[in-house]
This record gives sequence, C-alpha cells and structure tokens, in this order.
Amino acid sequence: MTLRALFLGQGIKKPFTEVIRANIGDAQAMGQQPITFLRQVMALCTYPNLLDSPSFPEDAKKRARRILQACGGNSLGSYSASQGVNCIREDVAAYITRRDGGVPADPDNIYLTTGASDGISTILKILVSGGGKSRTGVMIPIPQYPLYSAVISELDAIQVNYYLDEENCWALNVNELRRAVQEAKDHCDPKVLCIINPGNPTGQVQSRKCIEDVIHFAWEEKLFLLADEVYQDNVYSPDCRFHSFKKVLYEMGPEYSNNVELASFHSTSKGYMGECGYRGGYMEVINLHPEIKGQLVKLLSVRLCPPVSGQAAMDIVVNPPVPGEESFEQFHREKESVLGNLATKAKLTEDLFNKVPGIHCNPLQGAMYAFPRIFIPTKTVEAAQAHKMAPDMFYCMKLLEETGICVVPGSGFGQREGTYHFRMTILPPVEKLKTVLQKVKDFHIKFLEKYA
Amino acid sequence: MTLRALFLGQGIKKPFTEVIRANIGDAQAMGQQPITFLRQVMALCTYPNLLDSPSFPEDAKKRARRILQACGGNSLGSYSASQGVNCIREDVAAYITRRDGGVPADPDNIYLTTGASDGISTILKILVSGGGKSRTGVMIPIPQYPLYSAVISELDAIQVNYYLDEENCWALNVNELRRAVQEAKDHCDPKVLCIINPGNPTGQVQSRKCIEDVIHFAWEEKLFLLADEVYQDNVYSPDCRFHSFKKVLYEMGPEYSNNVELASFHSTSKGYMGECGYRGGYMEVINLHPEIKGQLVKLLSVRLCPPVSGQAAMDIVVNPPVPGEESFEQFHREKESVLGNLATKAKLTEDLFNKVPGIHCNPLQGAMYAFPRIFIPTKTVEAAQAHKMAPDMFYCMKLLEETGICVVPGSGFGQREGTYHFRMTILPPVEKLKTVLQKVKDFHIKFLEKYA
Repeated sequence: MTLRALFLGQGIKKPFTEVIRANIGDAQAMGQQPITFLRQVMALCTYPNLLDSPSFPEDAKKRARRILQACGGNSLGSYSASQGVNCIREDVAAYITRRDGGVPADPDNIYLTTGASDGISTILKILVSGGGKSRTGVMIPIPQYPLYSAVISELDAIQVNYYLDEENCWALNVNELRRAVQEAKDHCDPKVLCIINPGNPTGQVQSRKCIEDVIHFAWEEKLFLLADEVYQDNVYSPDCRFHSFKKVLYEMGPEYSNNVELASFHSTSKGYMGECGYRGGYMEVINLHPEIKGQLVKLLSVRLCPPVSGQAAMDIVVNPPVPGEESFEQFHREKESVLGNLATKAKLTEDLFNKVPGIHCNPLQGAMYAFPRIFIPTKTVEAAQAHKMAPDMFYCMKLLEETGICVVPGSGFGQREGTYHFRMTILPPVEKLKTVLQKVKDFHIKFLEKYA
Repeated sequence: MTLRALFLGQGIKKPFTEVIRANIGDAQAMGQQPITFLRQVMALCTYPNLLDSPSFPEDAKKRARRILQACGGNSLGSYSASQGVNCIREDVAAYITRRDGGVPADPDNIYLTTGASDGISTILKILVSGGGKSRTGVMIPIPQYPLYSAVISELDAIQVNYYLDEENCWALNVNELRRAVQEAKDHCDPKVLCIINPGNPTGQVQSRKCIEDVIHFAWEEKLFLLADEVYQDNVYSPDCRFHSFKKVLYEMGPEYSNNVELASFHSTSKGYMGECGYRGGYMEVINLHPEIKGQLVKLLSVRLCPPVSGQAAMDIVVNPPVPGEESFEQFHREKESVLGNLATKAKLTEDLFNKVPGIHCNPLQGAMYAFPRIFIPTKTVEAAQAHKMAPDMFYCMKLLEETGICVVPGSGFGQREGTYHFRMTILPPVEKLKTVLQKVKDFHIKFLEKYA
C-alpha cells in the first residue's frame, strides 16, 4: 500500500527505471525458476490425462498417481480430511524421521496447513483461548517476523519480547529468556515460547547447545514451544547446521521428550522451491494434550481443509526423487543451484554491507534476508519526526524514492530502542543483487552526508 | 471422527459393503468429473512448458498466459497481492456485471479468498471486533450452515437465530427477522444479517420480493448484509431464478445502493465445477466503511495471500469459454450435463422422500442438499436419551450402521424444537442415488416399526 501511495498519482519522474521488491521472501517473483519435478507432479495431478503423455518422467507419474489415489474421487478437486491427505502426512512423517536421523514421527501428529502462517495462527489461537484469570503471554524474539505480533494482537494476548543478541550474531541467550519471563509474570501468564530458526529477519542459525538450553528453559517454565523452522533448508555458513527442535528434544531424553509440548512448522514457500503461491505447509505437534488436540481438529474442520494443491506441493518437498530415479539428477542439480546461489549472495551481501561506513551486518548464516544495522545521524531522527515517521521508516522511504529499492524498516520487526535496521532479501539474481547493494551503498553515503 | 470411531476397532461385520458419504458437498469425491477446460488452464499455469504442446486448445493457452502474466515472475508460485491477482479481480468484476445485467462492479471491491469460508470468517471477525458496550449480534438462519455458528462462537459474538418457514418451502419471512432482531436487542447489539441463498441445507431459492424485503429490513435496522451466494449456479426448479443481493440492491435505488453495506461470496467449490480442493473463492463488498476496509486489508496481509492456484480456478469460473472459442462446446456440454443431472436428482429425491410415510421433503429448488423432516416416534427420543444423543443424531447413526449411508442430523444445522431432520447431498450418480434413496426408505420404515 505504501509503495502504491508513493507511485500512483504522483506523476513526477523518478530517478530509477524499476522498482526492486527486496521487501518480501518471494523467490519466484524475483526470477527463481520452479523445481521442474515439483511442477511436473503438480501438472499430472491437475490434469491426469497427462499421465499418458510420454513427455513426463515415470517417477513424476508414480508420485502423481499415489497422491491422486489418496484423494476423494482421485481428484485434487475434492476436499481432503481437515488434517490433510493421509499419504501426504505419512510422507511428511517419513521425511522428519530421515531428517532427524531416525527419531520417529507419527503421521497422526502431522497437520497439513495453508502455508506455515495458518498453522502458527491456528495453534496460537488454541493456546491463547485456554482462559484462566490473567491474559496469556506469548514470548517472541525481537526482531521477529510480524505474523507473530499481528496474531498475538488479534487474539488479545500479551506479547512478551525477548531480545536476540546483535553483538553475538543475533544469538538467542537463555538468560534473556529468563529475564523476559520473570518480568512478564507480573502482568500475564506466559504460556508459549516462539522460536524462529533459522531466523527471520536475522538469518541466525541456532547452535545445538542453544537449542538444548531453550528446551530446558521451556521444560522448567512449562512453556509450549513453537518452533518456526521454515528455513530449515536455507543454511549457508559452513560452520552452521540446522538442528530441529524435535531431534534435540528427543536426544535430551524422556524427561524432556515426554513432557515438553512442541509444535514445529515447515512450508513450501522457502527452502530451494520457493512455492509461496501454493500455500503449502505442515505442522508437527508433540505432547499435545488430547483436549487441545480435539479443539485443534474442531477448529480446522470449520475451514474444511488446506488447499489440496498446496498439500501435493508439500508432498514433493518431503518426498523428492532419490538416487536411481529418472528425475534425481535434474532435481538435485536444480536444488543445489538455488541453494548455492543463495549462499553466494548471502556472503556477497554481508561483505558489501560491512564495507559501507555506518552499516554493520551480521553474517547471513541462513534464511534469505540481511538485517543490517544502520547508524544514522541525529538529524535524521528529527527529520523523520517532522514527517511523523520512525527514523528507519524515513530512511527506507528515501531509499525507495531515490533508488526504487524496496526494503522493510527494522521497526516492522522490532529492535532495541535507539537502534535502526532494515530487512532486505537476497533473492534478486546475483548480478542484480550486486547493483542493488551498490545502490544502497551510494544512497547510504549520500544520506549520511545530507543529514550529517 | 464419528465415522471413524464407528468403523475402526469394532471388528464386527457390517450389513453393507460401502460407506456412502452423502454428508458433505464434495462433488468430485462422489465421482463428478472436473470441467476439462478448467483443468487444462490450471495445468498450463502449473507447468508452462505445456504452452508449447499441441494437445492443449488455444483458448486455454490464452487464459493461462493472461493469468501468468499477472503473477510475479509469471509463476503461480509467487505470492499475489493479499487481495488477489489484479486481472482475476477484474475478471470477477466483469462476471458480476454480466450476471447482474449491467450493474457495475468495481475490481477494488473484490477480494479473492481461500474458499468462501475464509471470506465469511474474515469479514465476520472484523465486523464483530468493532467493540462497543454490548456484544455484537449476528443474525443467522435456522437451519444454517454450521460455519456460521462456529465462527460466531470463536469470535465470542452472539448468535441471533431467525427461523426459516418450513411450511412455506423454507422461505425467509421478514416478520420473523423483525421478531428476532427485537428480541436480540435486549441482550446484544445486532449488527450483521447473514443470508444463504440458495439455501444450505434447505435448498430454498429466494424470490426477488423476499430479497427486496430483506434489503429494506437491513436498511431500516442498519445491519451489515452478508449474502452467501455460493450456490448461485445451482437452481433447478423451473419456477425459480437466482437473484443476487447486489443486483436487487442497485435496482432498489440510490437510497439503498449508497447505504446498505453488503458482502457477497462465491466459490469454486460448488456450482457445476465442484473444485473444493483448490479453495478458491471471492467476496465482493459494497459500501464498506473505509476504516473497515483498511482493517480488512491489514488482516488479509497477515496471511499473505489466498492460494494462487485457487485464484486461477476462480478465474476460469468467471471467465469461461464463450461462443466462437474452440473449447466452448465441450465446456458448455460438460456444464449442462452436471447441472442437468443435479436437477434430475433434486426432483428424484424430493419425489421419493415424499412417498415415505413419516418423511416430508420440501422441493429442492437449488443448492445440492435435501433436508427432509422426519417424524419419529416418542420411543426414539427415549432411546436416544439413553445413548446421550440428540434423537436425529441417533437416527443418523442407526442409518449409518445399518446401511453405510452417512448423512448429517438436523441438530447440526439447527431446527425448531421438537422437529427432526437430516441433510443428505444429491451428489451420488443417479443410479447410486436411487439405491441410496431406496435404502433410506427401507431403513426408515423399519425404524418406525421398531420404535412404534
């Protein structure tokens, strides 16, 4: 809307030829090509006449047939069960088991969702509606992905902020969790702890030790853990690895794995596939109280079912071609190409930002965003106030007006008082990203001079 | 869940070989074939390589290209605007204008949704959250589609029942609306009036006169009108015609068309296409207060966007082949075949039910359900109480156990105290439907004898 207001009806010439939307993690809109195999299976499911076509590989046909056989009337056009198509939930469970080195996953604990957002808001709705005398507190990282603050506000719950440590690559420090929960107890009942790993907007990838500490803390405080793991395939730093909360929970032993309540989320929108438009996703829940589970099923059934095409897309993500299958090589090549490119762009972005005076950028260990800190002169703060804007919003608006580059001010995600940031995706193709970074650099230097 | 509980783990032999799910309006699950043209366009959008294939007609390709050009990166995999893809909203507006004989529709007033359910619950959320000293009342028909009662309860609003007139083919009587709103004013603030036309579960198609009366009533009482018109293509009685609330509103003159707030809903799930799984739908809003519109956009943007594949499906529904186009004849034939079949089955169902002693069935003027009244002996009521069930639930469970036919008790939709009904879809193929009806008849007669 802001973009629109800016560009419509103003009629004046802009000093750029193209708006670059580096504000949203929308890979295919930035030119990333869909994974061929995924779209082949989807096309076969959509129009089963193609199952007779010699132009489609057998392994794609095999998967399409399997999905269709599990659909009512063998059609993507039928409703599925509210929890999702059975065989797709089975494939998700098998994927999680493989991913977590054998830690078992139960298809009954898998819920297919309309993107991850739907799963997150649904489970939060149930956890918050529990009642009790004081309002429910939901702990979220700062900076956070704004879905969390929006849903908490919709649900009239209390947002309990814990701050990630920018000095330490945006790591989560469990002492900060302790501080936050203690202070929150004065005015609400903290029940849920939300984690985003790899981080959005920070790009931080949590260490195994950190995850253990968080789980122990959740166990101590009897908090429901909500692990947003939609960037699980997006890890770039050679020193980092993705560890799922589920796996670490099980490895910590039965005292934890039998008691800590956990919901974790995945999506077709991120990773190497970037299929945002299909709104596919799943949630795995562990140790959910049977009563809550009943409420969950009831709530989901009101909306009938998640889009079945999105469910099918999720199936390909968790059940990709394996070595020996006809499509394996192409699939593997396409996947590695996307992820390799993202890794290159993550490094490029970090390096370039850190060469600009007045910008500091932590390593982009994962996800698909840079969240650099910008040190802006006091005069900017005054100029922004004159425009009734947050200082970083003012900065981002100027950047947009002068370069056509659209990024999101840090105030949209939350940041420590008096610090300023913006979030920029690394999704533009490499050459374009270089231009973008150069333009941001030039803009920033001019901006500093102007408001010095 | 009930079905499951019944059939799993019981191990005893059932007196039937197949469960017939006549409980849900899921056309393709009952064997209805997808409309070829719709699926061709969807397949082309999904896997654009097919645009080079000679096996797809040019008019399908033309539409696919148009949709893709309006998508970020020319891909269904990109997020759309939260309100939906622009050109699809334009096509929806053009469709409404044609449908309503030239009454203009503005694409800015169109919101694409995740099925109609999503639109209905989103707009209700906003209308209810308005605040004020007393709780918001939402008027709904009884019997109703249970989405309404569920969302009202989720939102902690007050459900205000108005009863449809079973003696008069389930017509809506405006005097009953007056009674309901007057009584409600004692304990809540009635703000919204929900209408389902053609009716679910009643199958009633409202007359133009009735719609005028309702609009006048909404204008008098300053109620927001919510018109659920997802069955607008499903009208079977030769004496009935679908009139949209929008059209009638405009024909009543500016006093109404400039003041009455209206949201109307459509979906890909019903009609002749039955594409439930794609979760496509739209909502048109008229005279929405700009502040409410702002809240709506904000709320929608939290969930990013409706599934783009569902949006594409909606596009084909509102922009089908026209005379002269390559696919027109096949499309027309397929559409008329589905609708003709439904009309035959509607008549068949009414006629057969009315031959059974103790069943009375109003004409199925539209939609895809019968909602017959069953007159059951007092002994049944006692037997049901012994099982802690509503009497019609008891009846439906017995029907399921003895015949494998799954229908929904009237208590799920609401009914006048002391009356009993069930809802059954007319979606099984004609021959199977005949068997189903015969089995219900035999069951009913036996049931009456047993509990006489």
